Amino acid sequence: MAHFAIAHCNMNSFPATKTFVRSTGSCSAICRYSLPFQIDSCSRKILRSRKVRQQNLSIVRATAAPMNQEVEKSLLSGSLQSDPFSKSKKVMIIGGDGYCGWATALHLSNKGYEVAIVDNLVRRLFDHQLGIDSLTPISSIQNRIQRWKSITGKNIQLYIGDICEFEFLAEAFKAFEPESVVHFGEQRSAPYSMIDRSRAVYTQHNNVIGTLNVLFAIKEFSPECHLVKLGTMGEYGTPNIDIEEGYITITHNGRTDTLPYPKQASSFYHLSKVHDSHNIAFTCKAWGIQATDLNQGVVYGVRTDETEMHEELYNRFDYDGVFGTALNRFCVQAAVGHPLTVYGKGGQTRGYLDIRDTVQCVELAIANPAKQGEFRVFNQFTEQFSVNDLANLVTTVGKKLGLDVQTMNVPNPRVEAEEHYYNAKHTKLIELGLQPHLLSDSLLDSLLNFAIKYKDRVDTTQIMPTVSWKKIGVKPQSVTSR
Amino acid sequence: MAHFAIAHCNMNSFPATKTFVRSTGSCSAICRYSLPFQIDSCSRKILRSRKVRQQNLSIVRATAAPMNQEVEKSLLSGSLQSDPFSKSKKVMIIGGDGYCGWATALHLSNKGYEVAIVDNLVRRLFDHQLGIDSLTPISSIQNRIQRWKSITGKNIQLYIGDICEFEFLAEAFKAFEPESVVHFGEQRSAPYSMIDRSRAVYTQHNNVIGTLNVLFAIKEFSPECHLVKLGTMGEYGTPNIDIEEGYITITHNGRTDTLPYPKQASSFYHLSKVHDSHNIAFTCKAWGIQATDLNQGVVYGVRTDETEMHEELYNRFDYDGVFGTALNRFCVQAAVGHPLTVYGKGGQTRGYLDIRDTVQCVELAIANPAKQGEFRVFNQFTEQFSVNDLANLVTTVGKKLGLDVQTMNVPNPRVEAEEHYYNAKHTKLIELGLQPHLLSDSLLDSLLNFAIKYKDRVDTTQIMPTVSWKKIGVKPQSVTSR
Repeated sequence: MAHFAIAHCNMNSFPATKTFVRSTGSCSAICRYSLPFQIDSCSRKILRSRKVRQQNLSIVRATAAPMNQEVEKSLLSGSLQSDPFSKSKKVMIIGGDGYCGWATALHLSNKGYEVAIVDNLVRRLFDHQLGIDSLTPISSIQNRIQRWKSITGKNIQLYIGDICEFEFLAEAFKAFEPESVVHFGEQRSAPYSMIDRSRAVYTQHNNVIGTLNVLFAIKEFSPECHLVKLGTMGEYGTPNIDIEEGYITITHNGRTDTLPYPKQASSFYHLSKVHDSHNIAFTCKAWGIQATDLNQGVVYGVRTDETEMHEELYNRFDYDGVFGTALNRFCVQAAVGHPLTVYGKGGQTRGYLDIRDTVQCVELAIANPAKQGEFRVFNQFTEQFSVNDLANLVTTVGKKLGLDVQTMNVPNPRVEAEEHYYNAKHTKLIELGLQPHLLSDSLLDSLLNFAIKYKDRVDTTQIMPTVSWKKIGVKPQSVTSR
Repeated sequence: MAHFAIAHCNMNSFPATKTFVRSTGSCSAICRYSLPFQIDSCSRKILRSRKVRQQNLSIVRATAAPMNQEVEKSLLSGSLQSDPFSKSKKVMIIGGDGYCGWATALHLSNKGYEVAIVDNLVRRLFDHQLGIDSLTPISSIQNRIQRWKSITGKNIQLYIGDICEFEFLAEAFKAFEPESVVHFGEQRSAPYSMIDRSRAVYTQHNNVIGTLNVLFAIKEFSPECHLVKLGTMGEYGTPNIDIEEGYITITHNGRTDTLPYPKQASSFYHLSKVHDSHNIAFTCKAWGIQATDLNQGVVYGVRTDETEMHEELYNRFDYDGVFGTALNRFCVQAAVGHPLTVYGKGGQTRGYLDIRDTVQCVELAIANPAKQGEFRVFNQFTEQFSVNDLANLVTTVGKKLGLDVQTMNVPNPRVEAEEHYYNAKHTKLIELGLQPHLLSDSLLDSLLNFAIKYKDRVDTTQIMPTVSWKKIGVKPQSVTSR
């Protein structure tokens, strides 16, 4: 897929840009002299137009510097996929060594952003402690970053430490001076938070205090910085009315107000994200923080344009009962001949998205920042499926590949409705230009083949759920399930 | 006010009780042989009847033991205000050394409950660290409890420790075996939580993790135990629609559901209570915890029947800019000739209640526990006032006492609406029998005279607000305002 740049001077307003796009035809032309700008509404409109989409255009940020010939040549030849102007766009990715964080770090680096990863690598420690492992072999963060540089010439800075320790975080902020912070740096597994009391407490402490520290660091060191925070669709629970994006307008006893959408989270992990959302909303109001809360659905897939460049760039892929999520886990189960584990009745419906859309959504959020003092909420998913829907899809595609796919209903380890209404809005990212990778037979094919490729690495003892929402106790669970 | 007991055998159902109440006339009679029971709907109905209220009756719990003559004599003479039967009703009061906690501990002990106080006494440490002090001289917790025993013969057990340390809390639960837990044990000042980053983090960690530990302790050691948790009306913020008690029924796009009332808290303290509410609601659903969340308004007053029995039983009374709340602070200001400090325009409207109603509400919640798995929310206040309303009341009553009361508008240190709609429901505790002590001239008289009595203890340098919602930073504020 070729990318071209439409640089846009802030001296050129809407009509000029429009004419420029129309007149260039193939759009492989660029402005030589342009000034810094945010992507404005006119550029956004153009970007969303069918014509521009068909031509695989992306609008990039421009600096005041005249373009050098080498860069121009690269752009015109299509060999450079990123924006050579935007050295000043610095993005700190907290949790950049994780499943979504790593893919996002590479994507943004590839797009020309200056990226720094902040991570304490504790997710790798969880693997050791629980005796689990990624389906894919993953490199050390140091090797990953080195390999990325050797392939693309791009630097990714690395700050290893715990954001719950404010001194560390402060130093990272002062050294890197981020313009955007993407915050993935939380314990992200619902079952992990329900293992025992100490994991529940760890999850809420780690997530809530880490986020508080990020908010204080932004206030103190980078007040103009845009916070892009990963929330979860699970914050909403499964209400019997439509789920809106963050807010709902309520008419009650003859009066009307638009209020935060009521939250009904159903694990200590999901609750921690609810707490974060409330804390962030307050700081937007009190301090003028600009924040986007991405209430993400369940992510599936493993490959992005960047992670598949080299095996050392591969992303992690969790299939175990603690960190593995529905569709990814089903693909591995199908690959190794383990029945698909449907929890309870399987009517649990959620929003899902391809990991390639995760990275795209984060980029869109960064490129179109929230206003000062705005707490903006996007529901970040592309399609709704029930667990049974997914099991049926994997069964169908698996059979085409010659796999004998069985399904088993296991007692639901969670406390959740198994048959319920679910209709969640998700238009705001589409309006910003998201082009979804919808779940298709070919994607499932590719996911299944990927799982088959690595099936010798599967530890089938890790597949069944071992964590019970009702049985969680105060005694530390220090023994793995093996 | 004389109290009499209506003991009620569970063999005697509604008609018998009714006849008993009607026939006894003055109602100073009691059943001699009765069995343990919960206050049932018929007793409640009687208790709420105007006739019974006028006679100052309180329904008490009865045990299977026949009554001894001494107890009967005390009851008939009206000298014993408590229920002598209910030794088995064990109440753990977390934070029982604090402003509301201490008054509640004495009240429940006086009513015949077996009381244990769990407290780490950190509130006293805050006084030292901030260089502030209670208007009233307060005794050590050990002396308080000893004095209470010497006056009433009643034991209050004491567990000194931090509920964030689970081992300590677990031992207290195992030793005391509570049937109800009243949880006041949180950092309860909004300005304190806004002093600096470390106080913000402390407040959220202390409150959220402490409450998580209480929930785990109940699940593990006392699953039948009723949790009565102090929340705050501040969780709701100031929406432009009526505030309901915990839940709101929303019709949206043609569908209807009853959902948690949306929260818009406006300090890290208030937010910590929002987080607690979400966590508790989840454990009620997932584990069957029975909980009552008392969303309390601003408490005023200092004396209860029990605290005024002896100076060593006196309650604390905060008037400083960090822990002092509106009405109490105004009374002290009027007493010492300091202008009443109205923050901003003074249109900020909140729910208020007398501390005598705090203790009454907690007792009502305990006596009428939530059902298993129920997360019940009561809005615990009796009247709404704006800050200007309160300033006007104190000015009027102060003048009658010969005080020259001035008012000054100071820049609002908080981020909050200063003119807004406010209509909060508060009927559920009334339905259970709450008989409010409404704010009256005579109460204000008494409060002002109390402040005058102790005015030599007032440190006027502590009155002005020093904590700013906007200026909070990451640098520790270790110097007091003196």
